[in-house]
Amino acid sequence: MQDPTQEEQASPEVRERVRASFDRQGLMAHLGARISHIGPGSVRIVLPARPEVTQQHGYFHAGATSAIADSAGGYAAYTLFPEDTEVLTVEYKLNLLAPALGDHIEAVGTVLKSGRTLTVCRLDVFGVRGDGERKLVAAGQQTLIRVNGAEG
Amino acid sequence: MQDPTQEEQASPEVRERVRASFDRQGLMAHLGARISHIGPGSVRIVLPARPEVTQQHGYFHAGATSAIADSAGGYAAYTLFPEDTEVLTVEYKLNLLAPALGDHIEAVGTVLKSGRTLTVCRLDVFGVRGDGERKLVAAGQQTLIRVNGAEG
Amino acid sequence: MQDPTQEEQASPEVRERVRASFDRQGLMAHLGARISHIGPGSVRIVLPARPEVTQQHGYFHAGATSAIADSAGGYAAYTLFPEDTEVLTVEYKLNLLAPALGDHIEAVGTVLKSGRTLTVCRLDVFGVRGDGERKLVAAGQQTLIRVNGAEG
Amino acid sequence: MQDPTQEEQASPEVRERVRASFDRQGLMAHLGARISHIGPGSVRIVLPARPEVTQQHGYFHAGATSAIADSAGGYAAYTLFPEDTEVLTVEYKLNLLAPALGDHIEAVGTVLKSGRTLTVCRLDVFGVRGDGERKLVAAGQQTLIRVNGAEG
Repeated sequence: MQDPTQEEQASPEVRERVRASFDRQGLMAHLGARISHIGPGSVRIVLPARPEVTQQHGYFHAGATSAIADSAGGYAAYTLFPEDTEVLTVEYKLNLLAPALGDHIEAVGTVLKSGRTLTVCRLDVFGVRGDGERKLVAAGQQTLIRVNGAEG
Repeated sequence: MQDPTQEEQASPEVRERVRASFDRQGLMAHLGARISHIGPGSVRIVLPARPEVTQQHGYFHAGATSAIADSAGGYAAYTLFPEDTEVLTVEYKLNLLAPALGDHIEAVGTVLKSGRTLTVCRLDVFGVRGDGERKLVAAGQQTLIRVNGAEG
Repeated sequence: MQDPTQEEQASPEVRERVRASFDRQGLMAHLGARISHIGPGSVRIVLPARPEVTQQHGYFHAGATSAIADSAGGYAAYTLFPEDTEVLTVEYKLNLLAPALGDHIEAVGTVLKSGRTLTVCRLDVFGVRGDGERKLVAAGQQTLIRVNGAEG
Repeated sequence: MQDPTQEEQASPEVRERVRASFDRQGLMAHLGARISHIGPGSVRIVLPARPEVTQQHGYFHAGATSAIADSAGGYAAYTLFPEDTEVLTVEYKLNLLAPALGDHIEAVGTVLKSGRTLTVCRLDVFGVRGDGERKLVAAGQQTLIRVNGAEG
């Protein structure tokens, strides 16, 4: 595992813009998710395990996994957008590769292609145990659209 | 809109099995979701609007939309499974067609193809206003796998 | 099965525009595909069975199924576009539900949501036997973007 | 670009098995596609440009791009399967990131997760110019199922 402290950070302005938007997402607070990294074209979001985010077998619910994956990809795209624009998810696809277990899960959104109108992100979600062992539990791809602030 | 009271119900045993599983999904209770219909190969789940399920513009978060869509599809598949089996989501893809707004959203999972191992569902999510007007806000497709209770 | 002769036709101008574009798709001719219906927001493309379109078990290759599904959805979107615009596929997802067998396969592209920039289509592919019996062999969803003729 | 001659090769038995199956895919021959690499969990397929594989603007048709991406992923999965088993595509999703142009395109299928029943692959397609410059033109994800020879 890469040491996140070594990863490139986005500019302070961009990080502030991402955090301000994230703080307006009622769902992220309600689930207990927090941003763990904001780099240029890459954002990570962590969700700790607790009964409120599970499915019927006690694993993280696909909806919780999806929620942080979608937000991680959306904010990864957003780091590359000019001010006064907004990002909306057009669609995404997610494969659930293994039961999502662990002390917490971490979603990594990474921009694969950044266009004028559309951005495509890769989505990876890892289950992380207390001892730091990471396992890929979900992987997907997401399409996002940039809209002007006035429209957004 | 079809009158849901006219729709076919699954057998009492199947409805009981679905409700028992749904009640073990911590996320559904935490979001405030509830099952609104259980038919053979079709399940509906409702999520009322509240700040805890929003994204940064105040709409329903794609993660909340996905969570109930995924569960609706999963239980739709489950209604056709024999006892002592379990259902797991393999993957799904969801297009977010319009801002998810309304008094509540309703996800409809419908079995498209039911196989011995794999089931494919169509997922539709509607935004429903207080006056009953419905608008399609998300549409997708989901692949599920049946596992024996012992493995599940 | 609906009688296609009863289905609504697009205007002569639109049908001409679709056919002219289709005729420029080298792949469609090379595979032996032809348009079977052009309605407003709905296009059908037929591909006859022959060894040149098979996979290793003798069924229609997923690539051939995809090719006509993608074109059917693209042209379905295109029927609703103004003149001097073009359509490009952003992405699509296709579930292969059953071995694609038959005298021919028919792909049906249907517009689910038509927006200013993006259009979302449902894709269905049927295997059709010589006696007319139809079976759904693939189903999917596609996102398309409208570009001005100058850009396209 | 990695030197393909440096990449790990699958065993001669596996390569033979993949090539024998590929040679039975009528569509691959009809399109003019050929296998360029067979590694353990990774297969590459090349498709040269020619009018027979284009869409209406003269780029590679999404159906041609999909066809070699699907086959590359399918054979990547197949390299990890025991003898006397077969592989079938369950579903895939592909984003078309840029106009597919070049002297040829190359699809790379890579196993992301190999399970007892299901395998998930990443799909990447590059446009390659005569001077060797490569550009990512499509990216996706695919789910495959292993079936016994008797069923396949």
